[in-house]
This record gives sequence, C-alpha cells and structure tokens, in this order.
Amino acid sequence: MSETLVGHVLRRLKQLGIREVFGVPGDFSFGISDPICQDPELRWIGTSNELNAAYAADGYARIKGFAALCTAFGVGELSAINGLAGSYTEHLPVFHLVGMPNTKTQRERRLVHHTLGKGEFDVFLRMAQPAVCASSILTPENAASEMERLVTAAISHRRPVYLGIPADHAAARLPQGAAAVRQVPAPATDREALKEAVELIAAKLAKARTAAILAGYLITRLGCQEAALTLVEASNLPFATMFMDKTALDETHPQFIGMYDGRIMNPEIREFIEDCDCVLNLGALWSDLNTGAFTAHIDPAKMMAVMHHHVRVGRAFFPNIEFCDALEELTRKVRKKKVTAPQVHGLGEPQGAPDDKITPAYLYPRWEKFFRPGDLVMAETGTVAMGLAFARMPQGSTFQNQLLWCSIGWATPAALGAALAEPARRTILITGEGALQMTLQEIGQFCRYGCKPIIFCLNNQGYLIERLLCKDPMECYNDLAPWNYQQLPEVLGCRDWFTARAATNAQLEAAMEQAATCGRGAFIEVVTEKMAAPPMALKLHESIQTLYGLKRVGE
Amino acid sequence: MSETLVGHVLRRLKQLGIREVFGVPGDFSFGISDPICQDPELRWIGTSNELNAAYAADGYARIKGFAALCTAFGVGELSAINGLAGSYTEHLPVFHLVGMPNTKTQRERRLVHHTLGKGEFDVFLRMAQPAVCASSILTPENAASEMERLVTAAISHRRPVYLGIPADHAAARLPQGAAAVRQVPAPATDREALKEAVELIAAKLAKARTAAILAGYLITRLGCQEAALTLVEASNLPFATMFMDKTALDETHPQFIGMYDGRIMNPEIREFIEDCDCVLNLGALWSDLNTGAFTAHIDPAKMMAVMHHHVRVGRAFFPNIEFCDALEELTRKVRKKKVTAPQVHGLGEPQGAPDDKITPAYLYPRWEKFFRPGDLVMAETGTVAMGLAFARMPQGSTFQNQLLWCSIGWATPAALGAALAEPARRTILITGEGALQMTLQEIGQFCRYGCKPIIFCLNNQGYLIERLLCKDPMECYNDLAPWNYQQLPEVLGCRDWFTARAATNAQLEAAMEQAATCGRGAFIEVVTEKMAAPPMALKLHESIQTLYGLKRVGE
Repeated sequence: MSETLVGHVLRRLKQLGIREVFGVPGDFSFGISDPICQDPELRWIGTSNELNAAYAADGYARIKGFAALCTAFGVGELSAINGLAGSYTEHLPVFHLVGMPNTKTQRERRLVHHTLGKGEFDVFLRMAQPAVCASSILTPENAASEMERLVTAAISHRRPVYLGIPADHAAARLPQGAAAVRQVPAPATDREALKEAVELIAAKLAKARTAAILAGYLITRLGCQEAALTLVEASNLPFATMFMDKTALDETHPQFIGMYDGRIMNPEIREFIEDCDCVLNLGALWSDLNTGAFTAHIDPAKMMAVMHHHVRVGRAFFPNIEFCDALEELTRKVRKKKVTAPQVHGLGEPQGAPDDKITPAYLYPRWEKFFRPGDLVMAETGTVAMGLAFARMPQGSTFQNQLLWCSIGWATPAALGAALAEPARRTILITGEGALQMTLQEIGQFCRYGCKPIIFCLNNQGYLIERLLCKDPMECYNDLAPWNYQQLPEVLGCRDWFTARAATNAQLEAAMEQAATCGRGAFIEVVTEKMAAPPMALKLHESIQTLYGLKRVGE
Repeated sequence: MSETLVGHVLRRLKQLGIREVFGVPGDFSFGISDPICQDPELRWIGTSNELNAAYAADGYARIKGFAALCTAFGVGELSAINGLAGSYTEHLPVFHLVGMPNTKTQRERRLVHHTLGKGEFDVFLRMAQPAVCASSILTPENAASEMERLVTAAISHRRPVYLGIPADHAAARLPQGAAAVRQVPAPATDREALKEAVELIAAKLAKARTAAILAGYLITRLGCQEAALTLVEASNLPFATMFMDKTALDETHPQFIGMYDGRIMNPEIREFIEDCDCVLNLGALWSDLNTGAFTAHIDPAKMMAVMHHHVRVGRAFFPNIEFCDALEELTRKVRKKKVTAPQVHGLGEPQGAPDDKITPAYLYPRWEKFFRPGDLVMAETGTVAMGLAFARMPQGSTFQNQLLWCSIGWATPAALGAALAEPARRTILITGEGALQMTLQEIGQFCRYGCKPIIFCLNNQGYLIERLLCKDPMECYNDLAPWNYQQLPEVLGCRDWFTARAATNAQLEAAMEQAATCGRGAFIEVVTEKMAAPPMALKLHESIQTLYGLKRVGE
C-alpha cells in the first residue's frame, strides 16, 4: 500500500534529521499526532502550551538544523504564531503542522469550534503567511509535490513553513507512485556573479594593509561552520563577532579577537575593526542591538559582505550568490595575510568577597568560568544576555540568544528544545525572573523527558531591561508578582533536582559546585539588587538616542 | 494645552467604563503604559505574558462590557493574538493598544528588534486584521476622528479593535479642537424591515399552539438583559438556554425550563422545544458544541431568530435590524400565551458516600450546591464546563465559558479579568489541570491585585476531553507533567491562601467549607479517575460522527 499523507510528511521530516516533534494535542490534529506517537523513530514532546512548543522547536532547530511543531487549528496555531515569527526572523526552519477540520466541514462552511464563526477555514493560514517562507494545505493529490516545494523552501530560506492538513486527509493514501516525485531544485548560485564578486573581494584584501572578518550568525544557521573556518584560516585574518553571532566560530581560535559592539563596549576592538582597510562580513546583520544601538560604523566603501543569497562589495550588490558557495570560492582565492590585532580577553576575575551580595562584577565573570567545552548556553533576552555577550566561551560550546526578535520568555522552552536536540551536551539556561514568569511551565518537561539542565534564574525584582529603557525605572509596570522561584522545579514535577537560592558570592559558589557535580537537573535563583546591570545594559541605557534612531553617532 | 494622543485615547476608554488595562510592558509601548500608570482613574494590571493579558481582558469585557489591553509591537501583540481572536469569535470588545517604533524608524525602514527584519512595520496589523473589526495606526492628526470610528465599531460589532501607536506619537498633542470631533453614528435599524419582521413573528406566535424562547449569549454581550427579560415576561413563553448561552437570563426565573442540548442531554427539553409550533431564538448560535454536536434540530420553518444585525423568520432574512430594537419592538407586539412546559431541574443530590473517591456523580451536583447568588463562575473549556452546563445557577450569578473559540487555558486569566471587573462578587474558577498548565501564571496576580477567588482544579491526569475525542484515550500526547498543583498558589506569591487536595467526597466537603468561609483566596485540587467524565462529555464521545459532520442526525 502507498504511504499515508502524514506518513509521507513525517518520512521527509525524518530525512532532515528531525526526531522530536513539539506540540499540544487538539481534536482536529489527532490525525497528525497519532502517527507521530506511533512512529518508533519519532518522539512526541508535549509542552504545556503552543507558544512554548514553538519556542522549543526554535531551540531545537538552532542545534539540530530543523524542527517540527504540531498544533491544532485556530487556537493552537495562533498561540504559537509569535514563536514562529521569531524563527522566521532569526532564520530557523521549523515545520508547523496544523491539523484542520475535515474537508466536508470546510466545504459546508460549518459553524465549528476553533473558527472565527464565519465559515472561513484558510484565514489562519493567511494570518501565518508573513511568518513563514512557504505554506500549503495538503491533499492526497498535492502532498508529495507540495512537500518537496516546502522542504526546499525551508532548506533554502531557513525559515518556517506551514502545512495545513485537513483531518480526513491525514490518513488518506497518496496515489501510487506519488512519493517518487522529483525534488524541487534549490536556488543556484550565479557563477559569473560569484566569480566577479569574489575577485573583487580578493583584490581588495590583497591590497589592504589591515583587514578583519566578522563571523556572523548565518554561518551556523546555514550549517557552514567548516567552510567558514577554512576561509578564516586560509585568510589568516583576525575575526571578531557581534552579539547575535556569538560562537558562530570557536572563541578559543587563535585568530579570534573578541566581540565588536560599536561604541558601546570593547573600544580596542572597535578601533581596530573600524580602522581596518577592509572588513569581510560573513553573514552578520546590521540590526540595532547587534551594532551597539547603531553605534557600529564601518565605512561602506570598506565593507564586503557575504550574505544569505547575495554578496555586497562596497556599494556594489551581487544577487543570486549562495552563502556557502561564496565561502568556498573565497577560500580558493584569498591569500594569507599577516595583520596585527588586539588580543581577545574575557571577563577576567570575579570581583567581590565571599560574603558580599552578588553584583554583576562578580556574577558574569563567574558564569564565564562555569562554562565548559561543549556547553549549550541559552541566554534569555534582556540584561543577562548582555552580561554574557562578552564572556569568552569554551571550545565547542554554543551560545544562543534571540537578538533580533527579542521575545522575552523564549529561552526556557528553547532550552528544552536544545537539550532534546543534543542530550549528550550540558544545557545551561540563563534567564531573568520576568522572562521565566512568561514560560516557566516547560521546567516540568525537562524532567519528564529525561533532561538535566542547569538553570540560573536572575531575580532582580522586576523587568530590569525595561527599567533601563523607560523614563522612570520604578514605574509600576516593571514590577512582578513575588514568586518563590526556588520551589518551582519541585512543584512542576522535578522532584529530585538540586535547587538553591544564592544572594552572596559564597552561596553562588556553593550552588555552582553542587549544580556542576550533582548529576541531576539544577535550578539556582541568583538574587541581585534591583538596578544591578552589566556594563552593556548600562551603556544601552545611555545610548537611547541612537538606539531609537533619534540621533546618529556623532550627532 | 490640548490633550496628548494617548491621553485622548484613554479618556474615551474611560468613558466606556474601562478602569483596568491589562498588559506587559515593552520598550516601544512605554508611551502608552506610562500615562496609564499615571492616570489616577486607571490601573495597570501586569500579567505574566501577553496571551494571558488578552484572556484577562476577555474576561473583564464579559463582565464590564469593554476592556483594554496594551502590548509591545511584534512579539507582544502576536503573543496576544489568539486571545484577541477568541474575543472576536465570542463578541467581546477589547481595545488592543500596540506601541510601535517611532515614525522615523518606520520611515527609514530600520532593522530594529521586534521586527521580521524586512523593514515592514504594518505587517503585524495586517496579521491581526482578521481578529478585529476595525484597526488604525494613530497620528496626532487622525487620532480624534479615528478613535470615534474605532469606538463605534467596538460598540456596534462587539469585537476587538486594534490601535497602533508609534512611540513618538504617544505623547504628541492633538491639534487644538480636535477632541470636539463628531461621533460616528452606529448602524441604524431599518424601521420598515423591523416592523415587517416583528409582525410576522407576532402573527406566528399568536397562531402557535406551543412556542418557546431560546435565550442566547447575544443578550449579555449586547447588554440587553433587561429588554430580553421584559420581552420574555411580556410573552409569558417558557425559555430554554443552550450551552454557550448559560445565564443569559436568570436560571431561577419561573419561565426557565432548563438547558437545550439536542439529542445529547435533557431529552424532555429537546422533545418540548423541537415539538413547539415555533421557537423564538434571541441571539443563540447554531454551532457544533452549542447544538449537542449538531443534534439539535428545529424545523427551519418554525424558527424565528433575532440576531446581532438581522432577524430571520423561517427562511426569510431581514437585514439591518439591531438586536435591542427587535427585542423592544417585539415586546410591544407580543401577547401573553399560556404554554405547558417541562419543569426545570438541576443536577440533584450528589451521589456517593463520604469516603468514596470523588466521581462526576458527586462532584458536579456538589458544585451546583456550592454556588451562591451573584457568583461569577468561570468554567474552562473541556469536561468541567460540560459537567457544569446542566447545573442550575443561582439568581444573579454569571456562568462564563468559551464555547465557540474553545481555547484551552482561557479560564484562569479570564477569571482574573472577571474578578477585577466586579471585585464585590465572588469569583469561582473551575478548570482542569491540563488547562491550568497553559496559563497558571495568573494565579499569582489574583493576590497581587487584591482578589480572593475560589479556584477548583480538576486533576484527572491528562487532557480528558482529548482522551474522549481521539482514537486511543491512552495515547501519550494526552499525558501531562506531574505537577504538585496544591503548592502552586504559595509558590506564585499567594502565601495566605487556603489550599487543599481532595480525593474523597469528605475531603471535598471539608475543603469547600473552608474555601467558602476563610475570607481568603482558595485553591482546591480535586482528584478523580483518569476517565471520570460528566454525562455530556461521554455523550459527545458517542456523537463524534455528528460532531465532525460525518453523519447527520438520524443517518
């Protein structure tokens, strides 16, 4: 017998390496969730709600390359849509499988639950379209060919795709031979444009006295770490990284010089980068928070950027060049150059005595020392990520944050996704208590699915990043309900976890020691003063004018 | 000086009776949240996340008529969109205030956080449009007139509206005299159509041997309880209510005969209603779950329906008739009729001995007895609402559930909204543990904002409604992480609450006694067997064929 529609979809997802599907069940999507549960190669990961499922899928895709999410029609998919938009923004291919009412119900425009009550069944697909790069409502007839189109779109654009599956189609058999459909070709590089652009870059580099590379997030998103590293080594150029791009390449590499963040931080890196004769940007975005509130300023004439589907050399734009192709061609053309550059340094020694209250000057350097090779560090949007951005990460470790979409609450479920994507690595979640309140539920799933993360929850009694950006830091909307964070794991079913509350440096030391050695999951509440912020967050506070585009650098 | 843009918006919202604004702060929306916090007549209600804020606003609008919600651009508004779509579906006017990046940033298409990274700033408004009845991006020039248009839309259609406010416009002054703008007229009833339709109905009623009224949810949504009651009494006709419409009119009224739910429940009510010569439907929807899985069947020739903007008599459709106008005109035309109808009965006595484990046969009748006049009962989607649907509610009490949109998780935040809308009434939240896991955060806000609800959380170890609707009830996606529910209030900051876990009838009795008299908030975990379902849920399980439109009644 031929494959069922959902059987076909799941087989294609498994070919991409997907082994877990995140979701919340719903009556219209049983036709999808049933075969997932029955597939010995797949695991259903039930989250407490759909937004959290989408965040978890985002975290999984960051580590595994692709992810899948299954929700019900209407209520489920709209709950997830913010998470999906985040994956879109940050270039993460998540397959969103949506179980729809059966075709008879749709055809008869029946007044059924989970609809807006107007007999329209494609309205949620339309709402989702800006957050996906391709979408389809599958039928037994179109499923095989549509699936190829959607898979190619997800691979080429590294964005989410939407698959609507009417309940009665889920178990329908595909026509005989349908699965033998031809794959849809991915966009191909324009070889002539590639040659011209790469020659231009190589010539500029050859002539330059000083040059540097920026290693951007697209390197990891497109799975080109090896190609990028080969290019970096072939050029012998020093490389820096921007905030969103952290750990795009190994931070222990001898050519790594540290983090570039415009005028906000690391003045010696800024000086070096901005004084270079040319800068080769490998997939970094020029966004507000990635450029130190738009204070990063590299003369456009000196910039050469290899981006997802194009290359830019100075002001010349070369479309239709794929990222990896450009890296490889550049590797063939560049010559080794010797450039004197700053030495990388991390956060240094924690500052403070054992019985002192914890301050950022102790906390962030201490976290840096806590990280080990291979760690998966998930850093929540807000002041914690800003403090960690300048930590030097160990070899083989991965630092993830969500710097363009910045949806607070993302990190906890995303850490669940990451932990399930690579269970052999240590997952460390660093979040703030305001963010934790948004999505705390998924703490319970770590235990349920056999993960042993180490979770740090920074409790500074409110939304610190908002306090730093608004007019009156003490405005009431920055306050939170006073939770007892330390008890959360136990209440959410993680009964054997190590938990602690640390308010002094000595307490933090003891808790970290336990967390690192206990062999169980760990949750540490780290208490600091209300306004205790790391340097970058304080600088951002001083840079509101450039952050919001009200002033340009130097104005 | 003239009003600021946000000052003007807030003044109009206050005129509608809004005193609380639900939200989560964000940097682009400080221009809205700052003046809310500073307004002595308004209260900022911070929820843990934006979906919960939207649900809370929905609950508030159900009791107070209108509600307001304030979120940040992109991340915040998309997180809330499922809640807003629920309010749209269920006819609840919620004003969604969205703080957008400033106009300079938008004009320059800057790459800023909370965008999809493509320089588009109206994309989220476009995504929201299917979930609102009107939308606008406000400027100092258009704010006064647009606000009138939006207010009229919210009043006329009882659906959410979307107000985008660029950060730099928030505090901008309106042009002198702008606030004196003319109000936008609401749709007016076509008096000729009204006369004709009402005469037809009155004639049919006069001729009928037996007739009945269905009191629908639009009565409460449109604030027409008095007009509807006057009509019901003028006609002297017996009235029944459907599931979504529960407590649309007082269930202790002598003309109330009980709940009509097709072939699913209450056969004597069905027989009476379906045998009437004509049935006057005052604003009830013919949706799947409101009609006993489409088993309610009234001959279309006998049906007369007064709906939001139209009247239908048999197969004749009369557009442009407003609901309240029709009620009033009907009251003038109908004559009293004597009809013998079934007597209303509630759930009867709880069945079981004190030391028995709690079963639905004990639980639902016991809840019925627990309710008092004036209670606000918020019933979560799922089996709990189905068990409560047939309870007879005390005078002046309100029963809310979300039967068309059916977004599980709605009830907990919605109960917060309801409790804040009428603090003098007792708020009782009845939810399941699967639903509670979705949105538990807001338990903490009850305490923080001085509410003392009584919360019952039914723990039956999984999503029972899904178990009843899917193929294999024991499929893994119906399971949940095993939380310790009873500890939740304390951990979420409700330290003085009464909490209990009841597994036997006697334990339930003791806990209810305490909850009713302790004068504090209360949280009771009610433990039942995995498959213990009330009769309606079991019947639904048997009616899957008609529920999903695969069979019609009698086929």
